[in-house]
Amino acid sequence: MALGRCSDQERRQAVLAMADALEAEASAIVAANAADLEAAAAADLAPSLVARLKLDASKLAGAIEGVRQVAQLPDPVGVRQMHRELDSGLVLERLSVPLGVLGVIFEARPDAVMQIASLAIRSGNGAILKGGREANRSCTAILSALRSGLAASAVSPQALELLTSREESLALLKLDGLVDLIIPRGSNELVRFIQDNTRIPVLGHADGVCHLYVDQEVDVPQAIRIALDAKTQYPAACNAIETLLIHRSSAAAFLEQALPAFAEAGVELRGDAASQALGVSTAAEESDWRTEYSDLILSVRVVDDLQKALDHIARHGSRHTECICTTNGATAETFLRSVDSAGVYHNCSTRFADGFRYGFGAEVGISTQTLPPRGPVGLEGLVTYRYLLRGDGHIAADYASGARSFSHRDCPL
Amino acid sequence: MALGRCSDQERRQAVLAMADALEAEASAIVAANAADLEAAAAADLAPSLVARLKLDASKLAGAIEGVRQVAQLPDPVGVRQMHRELDSGLVLERLSVPLGVLGVIFEARPDAVMQIASLAIRSGNGAILKGGREANRSCTAILSALRSGLAASAVSPQALELLTSREESLALLKLDGLVDLIIPRGSNELVRFIQDNTRIPVLGHADGVCHLYVDQEVDVPQAIRIALDAKTQYPAACNAIETLLIHRSSAAAFLEQALPAFAEAGVELRGDAASQALGVSTAAEESDWRTEYSDLILSVRVVDDLQKALDHIARHGSRHTECICTTNGATAETFLRSVDSAGVYHNCSTRFADGFRYGFGAEVGISTQTLPPRGPVGLEGLVTYRYLLRGDGHIAADYASGARSFSHRDCPL
Repeated sequence: MALGRCSDQERRQAVLAMADALEAEASAIVAANAADLEAAAAADLAPSLVARLKLDASKLAGAIEGVRQVAQLPDPVGVRQMHRELDSGLVLERLSVPLGVLGVIFEARPDAVMQIASLAIRSGNGAILKGGREANRSCTAILSALRSGLAASAVSPQALELLTSREESLALLKLDGLVDLIIPRGSNELVRFIQDNTRIPVLGHADGVCHLYVDQEVDVPQAIRIALDAKTQYPAACNAIETLLIHRSSAAAFLEQALPAFAEAGVELRGDAASQALGVSTAAEESDWRTEYSDLILSVRVVDDLQKALDHIARHGSRHTECICTTNGATAETFLRSVDSAGVYHNCSTRFADGFRYGFGAEVGISTQTLPPRGPVGLEGLVTYRYLLRGDGHIAADYASGARSFSHRDCPL
Repeated sequence: MALGRCSDQERRQAVLAMADALEAEASAIVAANAADLEAAAAADLAPSLVARLKLDASKLAGAIEGVRQVAQLPDPVGVRQMHRELDSGLVLERLSVPLGVLGVIFEARPDAVMQIASLAIRSGNGAILKGGREANRSCTAILSALRSGLAASAVSPQALELLTSREESLALLKLDGLVDLIIPRGSNELVRFIQDNTRIPVLGHADGVCHLYVDQEVDVPQAIRIALDAKTQYPAACNAIETLLIHRSSAAAFLEQALPAFAEAGVELRGDAASQALGVSTAAEESDWRTEYSDLILSVRVVDDLQKALDHIARHGSRHTECICTTNGATAETFLRSVDSAGVYHNCSTRFADGFRYGFGAEVGISTQTLPPRGPVGLEGLVTYRYLLRGDGHIAADYASGARSFSHRDCPL
């Protein structure tokens, strides 16, 4: 059946069938991945890429569990967002509907195929997936399992397609009108390349240059705890901080305790002149303020006041997630109102910027664009809406002439 | 004060001050428009363009009344869309916030300046406006009034800027990162040019090729009434129908009554072979199925069944608004579920696709894109949202280690 017309129950069952099929074909998938890993070793691939590529039996079991969880998420389709009588017998509804077809482009990470494919089917969307060449065997094996799962469901296996060549991937970016949303999962370079080469909306972000601002009125030990977590808990994450801004009046007290803590955690600091005078040993270059290190490196700048911190963030930030550490509630509120990022935090780690942590159950990605959906995007980012209007011969001329008039009465959702 | 931080009351008052200033400078505005009209006559501008350009005292009074109505619309900013405790003391909110800066590009129609400027200020957005050269004097006079109104309010007059040269307009399209949304108001060609020349999201639509499908089970007089309204009530509107699809079994009965009615209304029909056999005198070319006539012309095609109608719409439609006329409820529901347009209607005129008629109070434009906002867009299309997270030293490591766990408890909005 056409996926867009499948019921909640049918889509849920299809995702569970996908999980069952992955389980049934687990050994074939792990073997295909082993072959990819062998080829990667022979080709001298970067260790970080190899780590992401690896899909052993236990990682696969975890991914299958994730697919089952997606099946349990509430249906994002068919939600009545508006219900209004325009006039007697003329009733407007706004219903959530699937976007249509997702184009998913990712590097290495064969586990992303399972995650995105299950989110797509759960939300009634078809998906065209393109993995990195290095993961070709793994992705092919996974797709074959996913499609055999769909064959045992109401959803057509054709709802999922795998592309394997770079030419096909470039062609995918040109399919405006057929593909409704591109979801890139990979390096900043991949995302930027995609944004520059398609007119299809792209969900995601290139950079995650997140900031932590330490105010003049601050609980220093708490701010250090937050800074350490935000930098070191998973330095490669997009929601890790890259720059620490410190109010001039608290800089000495903060750095005195923070420097040994950062040193112990293995964090390299790169500071401006003022922070160097307070003990930061390496000088920051202008480019440091725009760099997502994805590593245990942190740039440090001393600022004269809150406004200077806001200016720095507006100029160098990537509108991902920024945090203020302050004990002054009014200062916190000014920061929360002034920073134009998808996430703005007070006294907590930027690492919370994540769909699972927000309670969305799953995450398609994190968007730093201005228009919604932005921030961590769950299933709701994979639907749009449609206005349905039901009448009984109603025509506009009767309202233009004054023969009839609108009631605009909201009805229960 | 920075517009983004102004309160509901301040923004409302600013819009009213804009209306007052327009009133105070009405005679200067009308005089400037008269000079534009004179130049247009000398330059032999198309009559339709001259009609849109004209802004006499009564049209201006109507536009000022529209500005006052925008002031009364409910505030779209600061709406709490989500409120969730992630853990004790760690509370997530999702608040609606202004987009930032709108880029507005329009042809002729100086009244659009007032409408869009008031919607921008009401929603906390700055706007850079670029009018057609032919409306230069009118727009300059209007902007001067709007800014003097703002000068008597909490909002800075700099929130509104007018561009006058084509070079500035092209530069505006390149301001990604500074301008958050482009709103074009003008011809299909203008919109298409803008979509092709910017990476900033564009709110709107190039084409409005709307369809009316007359089913085999149909109340013929009602269907004719709806078809006439949808074609003739305002043929230049984007929500007017351009193509009539008729089920083969009802084609003879429908056309027998419809042909004289269309003839009387001055509508020229262009039909396929089957409809020509039933009396449509002119042959439709392949290009007719993709043409927005914006005139009293209608293409007509006889289809074998509902599926063929759906196929035609999917192939040639612009995803704006489509309607089915049928007395069969199940057929109607299939149509409503299957057509992927911003508006899908049953037994009423497509001319209802309009923000005022939907009860939004005002309209920024109609979007035919897949992602929200789509369809008629009111003030809600001029805001986005931001996630605010307030904690008390919460760090991600505690949740990774299992020392703490998420509650994800929804709180009242």
